[in-house]
Amino acid sequence: MKNINASIITIGDELLIGQVIDTNSAWIAQQLNRAGIAVTKRIAVGDDADEIWKVLESENQHADVVLITGGLGPTSDDITKQLLCKYFDGKMIVDKGALENVKFLFEKIYHKPISEVNLKQAEVPDVCEVIQNKRGSAPGMVFQKNGTIFISMPGVPYEMQGIMEDVIPMLEKRFELPVINHRTILTAGIGESALAEMIKDFEAQLPSEIKLAYLPNYGMVRLRLTTSGFEKVNTEKVINEQFEQLKELVKNYIVTDKDQTMQEVLGNILSKNKKTISTAESCTGGAIASLITSVPGSSAYYQGSIVSYSYEIKESLLNVKKETLEKYGAVSEETVKEMLSGLLNQMKTDFGIAVSGIMGPDGGTAEKPVGTVWVAVGNKEKQFVQKLKQRFERKKNIEVTSVMALNIVRKFILEEDKI
Amino acid sequence: MKNINASIITIGDELLIGQVIDTNSAWIAQQLNRAGIAVTKRIAVGDDADEIWKVLESENQHADVVLITGGLGPTSDDITKQLLCKYFDGKMIVDKGALENVKFLFEKIYHKPISEVNLKQAEVPDVCEVIQNKRGSAPGMVFQKNGTIFISMPGVPYEMQGIMEDVIPMLEKRFELPVINHRTILTAGIGESALAEMIKDFEAQLPSEIKLAYLPNYGMVRLRLTTSGFEKVNTEKVINEQFEQLKELVKNYIVTDKDQTMQEVLGNILSKNKKTISTAESCTGGAIASLITSVPGSSAYYQGSIVSYSYEIKESLLNVKKETLEKYGAVSEETVKEMLSGLLNQMKTDFGIAVSGIMGPDGGTAEKPVGTVWVAVGNKEKQFVQKLKQRFERKKNIEVTSVMALNIVRKFILEEDKI
Repeated sequence: MKNINASIITIGDELLIGQVIDTNSAWIAQQLNRAGIAVTKRIAVGDDADEIWKVLESENQHADVVLITGGLGPTSDDITKQLLCKYFDGKMIVDKGALENVKFLFEKIYHKPISEVNLKQAEVPDVCEVIQNKRGSAPGMVFQKNGTIFISMPGVPYEMQGIMEDVIPMLEKRFELPVINHRTILTAGIGESALAEMIKDFEAQLPSEIKLAYLPNYGMVRLRLTTSGFEKVNTEKVINEQFEQLKELVKNYIVTDKDQTMQEVLGNILSKNKKTISTAESCTGGAIASLITSVPGSSAYYQGSIVSYSYEIKESLLNVKKETLEKYGAVSEETVKEMLSGLLNQMKTDFGIAVSGIMGPDGGTAEKPVGTVWVAVGNKEKQFVQKLKQRFERKKNIEVTSVMALNIVRKFILEEDKI
Repeated sequence: MKNINASIITIGDELLIGQVIDTNSAWIAQQLNRAGIAVTKRIAVGDDADEIWKVLESENQHADVVLITGGLGPTSDDITKQLLCKYFDGKMIVDKGALENVKFLFEKIYHKPISEVNLKQAEVPDVCEVIQNKRGSAPGMVFQKNGTIFISMPGVPYEMQGIMEDVIPMLEKRFELPVINHRTILTAGIGESALAEMIKDFEAQLPSEIKLAYLPNYGMVRLRLTTSGFEKVNTEKVINEQFEQLKELVKNYIVTDKDQTMQEVLGNILSKNKKTISTAESCTGGAIASLITSVPGSSAYYQGSIVSYSYEIKESLLNVKKETLEKYGAVSEETVKEMLSGLLNQMKTDFGIAVSGIMGPDGGTAEKPVGTVWVAVGNKEKQFVQKLKQRFERKKNIEVTSVMALNIVRKFILEEDKI
């Protein structure tokens, strides 16, 4: 038994000029990982025949599986299919299944006439095995060369993901795959260096087959233990033992010991306790609401948000006093407290979050520089207010503030629960 | 004069298991591109000495510049610095500037004691030129080998971006760089294939030095012309001529002929006409507000949002009639119309957007399947209602709906303006 290694190749000029962020690679890597296939390399190249050829050659030398996305569109800047045909020494033929699929899509779903370029989507090299695309017109194609399997898929994430539903079982059938185990802890309130210092003895004694990684994000750090092996029971036992030790060491900082996001953790707490929440957002401009509602089923505990981007709305919808805004400004402890109290009156939820701050690039003053944020959380009986100082650019300031606000209310709810 | 080619190497196991989406590569590619350096390859490898070594070797063979991010953290899963030291045949020394920087950060900014691992951040190979990190403790390092320049930077985006502010001028000094020109048109209301059909004659006659690309996203297609040359005036003239032709061909579908997002386009229209807008969101859960407020200065035209995730809030804050909700449901033409009218009453803005739909994965019915969305836009005098059918998973459905809603109100405002 051997470990199966994969490479991911993404094709498209848009990746090289930075117009598009590559989310496909991360998604594919997750799927492969879960199936026990380790990704050892990810490569992005442009719509350039020479470069694509070279990268196919280089990955053929060491990878067991090569997953390729992109370059399969109907337009002439997409040259990948012709090149694959040449590389694998085939000739183009019309695939009956793919042709039926294209016709079905245009007649029944898009209700549009089929053009010549659309029909070309049904052509494939005769040396490949076709995986039909249930979500679009470009089919998936499976090739083999020198013992390496190459799988070509369209670059549209939704279509690629549909094809991967068939790819994973195919790979599981073809290879004997090891079990890859991950255990993750999301920590908050402690930096990467301090965490490393705290668990350095633990790290030193870790068995060589277990890897520890620090993944800092949004001002929090996720710790991840990883192991891979062919004896399912044994590897699980080893990693679980180490994981329990790690949890004990960092217990004061744990948000969750599952692979969950902050909004999922908060959602679970609210669901379990049958409590509801609402938000009043100024500087985050709906980003907290967006995070909460990104979780399916969040309507069970989330009532809504009042995004009060102006003084007027803070007054009219959240009942913040004009004098408060004039005396202390919109970014102040006094204002977020009144926002919270107004919110709870309007939304009638068990808990609330109110946020006001300056996200940049403009709007900062000497007294209240860019990055100053006030957060109030609480219920009718009790409020907790915290001042944050962010030090990123606008987008990141909004993201970090939103996640931190969720963490502040999470802690508040857990504290309340104890009492 | 020759074109300067760059490779981007990102290091970190988190990239290979898909726990993190690589946004650094796209950002770096944008910066390089603007400076006239073409990125020909992007490679991600894990925290694995052999793999990192191999990729340094392979890129040394063809790239003029190699930008490396990640693997420089203070924790022991980060092995890159030691490896670079070995690869470039140096030995580790303490850099005085980097040491001062670490001390400054911990004493003056973080207000935390410095640990041994933090101090290690100031060590660098003696064969590199140091670029100080103004935003963190790991310095940037510049190496040379066989005529290729290697630049190593930390993986934290905010820190890397700070270092790049010094990298770009350094590269501009070292190389004679060509001018790379991009011209983009954002189109809406027409698919990729239909666009390709429409402009196929234009595409056929394009001079060989101009590349055309189709970039579909959010149900829209961006068209991009690119050219690169050393004679600034000439290349600009050629691309501008072609661009005018292209604009004329697709004029009925143009959202913008600049490299702007939909929310920037809408913001500009509102600013220019001194108009205001507000939003009432159900299924998008704050995502439209988030998009609008992602634009700096949006407070000039944006009042806020009422995210009404429940029936109660639709009634109490947006004045939707109980009978309407009972008779037609929350996802209906009647409900979004009342949401819009309630919104305009509450927010007193010139224009408004109201959205209600089913984003999935649950909540769909035979009559109203997942993906059904109603959008109402308008002002006090006139409303326009449109039904959308999305066909993605939850996250993508929310994103696409949000951008489409902005486009619908954009068209409404432009139409009103004409009258």
